[in-house]
Amino acid sequence: MATGYVSEAAIRRLPAYYRQLRELEKAGVETISSKELGERLHQTPSQIRQDINTFGGIGRQGCGYQVKELKERIGEELGLNAEHRMVILGAGSIGTAVARYPTFQREGFRTLALFDSAPSKVGTAVDGIPVLDIADLETFLGEHPADIAVLALPAGAAQEALRRLEESGVNAVWNFAPADLQYESSRMEVVNVHLSDSLQVLTYKMAHR
Amino acid sequence: MATGYVSEAAIRRLPAYYRQLRELEKAGVETISSKELGERLHQTPSQIRQDINTFGGIGRQGCGYQVKELKERIGEELGLNAEHRMVILGAGSIGTAVARYPTFQREGFRTLALFDSAPSKVGTAVDGIPVLDIADLETFLGEHPADIAVLALPAGAAQEALRRLEESGVNAVWNFAPADLQYESSRMEVVNVHLSDSLQVLTYKMAHR
Repeated sequence: MATGYVSEAAIRRLPAYYRQLRELEKAGVETISSKELGERLHQTPSQIRQDINTFGGIGRQGCGYQVKELKERIGEELGLNAEHRMVILGAGSIGTAVARYPTFQREGFRTLALFDSAPSKVGTAVDGIPVLDIADLETFLGEHPADIAVLALPAGAAQEALRRLEESGVNAVWNFAPADLQYESSRMEVVNVHLSDSLQVLTYKMAHR
Repeated sequence: MATGYVSEAAIRRLPAYYRQLRELEKAGVETISSKELGERLHQTPSQIRQDINTFGGIGRQGCGYQVKELKERIGEELGLNAEHRMVILGAGSIGTAVARYPTFQREGFRTLALFDSAPSKVGTAVDGIPVLDIADLETFLGEHPADIAVLALPAGAAQEALRRLEESGVNAVWNFAPADLQYESSRMEVVNVHLSDSLQVLTYKMAHR
């Protein structure tokens, strides 16, 4: 496990390492050099070696990295060896899309329920996952502890929802609401999704070809 | 405009610069140092200076950067000074969520239509945007040129859709399908969205607190 200070930028690179290593393993590749891995990840070989060193590196000088071993090591760093229990707040188009996203199940994320305040949605289900009344959030969490909440509410409702989650002991939030959320607990982790970022990478490339 | 080789990693940092600068401008901040900008972006000041230099930097030693000027400069690099006309292939939960995403309109992205093959969806509308029969894709694009296509189809249907887009002259694709797409034209740009990546940043933080 990585010890000491790890930069936010290095943490954000890890999921791409995991994805590439999973693809390589699926393709039957057993070892890979930092140069080849760097080409796939658009990073320099020295950046690759430094990152893998940071995250409890394995591999010997001149021998390359063992794909399977490194994938498992990074998956462990990413907390993917545990099952995560999620609730989704907001059963609109984003909440529904997250509930249906096929790879989450495969990666050990289990959605217990969606919550909404609209009478037309409460009592329905999304791919078999129940949509419950958001008024019952605390009661539900008391009986079915979740460790991650997905915030897929309008910006105006997100802050109040975060406060309720914090009081219910859910302290990891994956936030899709375009809001700068405030919270008190130092245990609370909020990761904001900026969907436009990758669209802007596309328009950058269009503008520069 | 940036000239010469710009790394993929540097391009991927740009949208976050743009976002932070827009927030700063909204908050009435006129100038910012590389140190302060670095703190907001989780980057070292020297990385910030190097990036801004690459992208046609403005700002003088010791004076900081002009927030408004730098934001406009980076927006231009990102191709955000042009209007982009999008079509969305797939009117399922992801296609619908993209069509409804509120910030795209603000940022100059206009969705012309969604396309689907399901008779229950064709002829409906999402927030006023028509859902058309995917069989009519070529005819529509002939009359209403689009410069970006959003692929929100199942993995199995994505490759064939990409081929049809390529033949219709749409050569920028924002791909949500979990598929490794192949294409022939060197003009084609495909950016893949990996929604799980930011969720894994969250589980990393949960595993390390």
